[in-house]
Amino acid sequence: MKEFKIGLLGLGNIGTGTYKTLEMNRASIEAELGAEVKIVSILEKDTERERDINVTKDQFVSDIEDITGNPEIDIVIELLGGIEPASTFMEKALLAGKHVVTANKAAVAASWERLHEAAKKGGAMLKFEASVGGGIPVLTAITGALRANEFEEVMGIVNGTTNYILYNMTAKGMDYATVLKDAQAKGFAEADPTADVEGIDAANKLSILMALMFDKHVHPTEIPTKGISDITADDIAAADREDCVIKLIAHAVRTDNGIEYSVGPMNIKKSHPLAGVNGEFNAVYVKGNVVGELMFYGPGAGPLPTGSAVMGDVMEICKAVSR
Amino acid sequence: MKEFKIGLLGLGNIGTGTYKTLEMNRASIEAELGAEVKIVSILEKDTERERDINVTKDQFVSDIEDITGNPEIDIVIELLGGIEPASTFMEKALLAGKHVVTANKAAVAASWERLHEAAKKGGAMLKFEASVGGGIPVLTAITGALRANEFEEVMGIVNGTTNYILYNMTAKGMDYATVLKDAQAKGFAEADPTADVEGIDAANKLSILMALMFDKHVHPTEIPTKGISDITADDIAAADREDCVIKLIAHAVRTDNGIEYSVGPMNIKKSHPLAGVNGEFNAVYVKGNVVGELMFYGPGAGPLPTGSAVMGDVMEICKAVSR
Repeated sequence: MKEFKIGLLGLGNIGTGTYKTLEMNRASIEAELGAEVKIVSILEKDTERERDINVTKDQFVSDIEDITGNPEIDIVIELLGGIEPASTFMEKALLAGKHVVTANKAAVAASWERLHEAAKKGGAMLKFEASVGGGIPVLTAITGALRANEFEEVMGIVNGTTNYILYNMTAKGMDYATVLKDAQAKGFAEADPTADVEGIDAANKLSILMALMFDKHVHPTEIPTKGISDITADDIAAADREDCVIKLIAHAVRTDNGIEYSVGPMNIKKSHPLAGVNGEFNAVYVKGNVVGELMFYGPGAGPLPTGSAVMGDVMEICKAVSR
Repeated sequence: MKEFKIGLLGLGNIGTGTYKTLEMNRASIEAELGAEVKIVSILEKDTERERDINVTKDQFVSDIEDITGNPEIDIVIELLGGIEPASTFMEKALLAGKHVVTANKAAVAASWERLHEAAKKGGAMLKFEASVGGGIPVLTAITGALRANEFEEVMGIVNGTTNYILYNMTAKGMDYATVLKDAQAKGFAEADPTADVEGIDAANKLSILMALMFDKHVHPTEIPTKGISDITADDIAAADREDCVIKLIAHAVRTDNGIEYSVGPMNIKKSHPLAGVNGEFNAVYVKGNVVGELMFYGPGAGPLPTGSAVMGDVMEICKAVSR
């Protein structure tokens, strides 16, 4: 039986969720592929943490070369997060002809050309479904089943933390600071929430969406970006009087002057499908010149939803190389 | 430059929408594929009708053998509708090694084994994204990006006619007969609405969803099916008092006793994502054991949305055979 060998970079929350996804559904995954899938090496310093998965000490390595230089490894899954060293590690793997799957929006958005160039040179595939919308398979749809369209617009609620905060401000009439504290206590916001509440995470995701939909890569720092930290209860009440809710929207639209794009709070009519996307959920609304309006809705983050998208990409690669 | 030659069965509304999709986006479609795509032969009796597309008389043929027996044709698009002769024509094409794309839910659901058997024998691909949810790329998601999941449940609003009727009964307090007449006048319901309002169309789609999600093909006539023709304004008011709306739901769920399935009107809590799917829109809600809850929303019918899905399948085939 054919075997696919995987090197995993990072065994934090997302890495553990991905490992668990493979453990939970190994039987159906391997039956579908007609092949075994094994995570043979894991680049991770913390070898001691209790993770509730069946991992052994001999799987851990401490040097990236142990993975990129291992001729047995077919696929590298990068779940370190952050632009570096993740981008350099992925580039190395791709140049060595290893297919790469990542959930890392910051690295994919910032290192777009560099990573795609390396994939081309190495003759390897680069997949990153989990980087936008977590478990929602929106990138595969855009690049696959919807490819007969020319895209006109995308509006994404692509950051769960800000959606959770805005939703609770709206539903409970609470102010920003109180809801943020509550979100931090519940694990929906990080101790330093800057990347989320200032729209930086959403800009990373918009950069990726635009590159795929409009074939136009804009570095995330060049996307006009406004966060939600100065939204007040008054703003929300004012929106309500116009029959709207405020959502943090990653927006790009084709106009006569080219593609216009920004991240920021927007008034969304309550009748719009995005208005009902509440709590920590994500949704991406796209408009194609043939299909019209579509919306994809689901869990935008979390170890298992992300694991679902990562392992989905791994399976697509296994199928493609088996043909 | 490589050229893909297509034989098209049927140039009615959906066939014309598919033809138009290729005309509208030919440049981007061919750039993406690095190949030309040509509809060379069309099986259609009505060669005179004004269709607002650039089609010439010499493209029309009157015998299926002119397509299945033409060694130049790579892909057959079947848009005749109905179980026969569509199933026989697709079987013939697959056995001749031609890839088949169809939007025909009745034929795919009823002839599931026969068509898949023919595809295997002929070494050809069979794709039918447009058969469920029109332009919504839900089947590709289920069989691709979400494949690392074991599916637990599907709830689909997969018939636009019934959703339009129920929505208008709910929003305007009108009775069934009045709304049906209005839907017929506006083209959202057919002169003989039986297949839609009695749930037969939804059962065809549930049969296809179940086969892909649970690897269990149930003939649509064996799915317990109830339509909406006896829903009254009182039923809708009663649902409203329980904070629910009535939707026609194609439902399948994994239980300890196997897969349970049915089509029928259901009370849906107003807080559920399916409750906000209004008018002629469709949505499919799926639950996977890893990803959790997802919903796909969009236009479930219409010539161009269906054309989007059909041409998406065609492009996937072109890419797969070019590798």
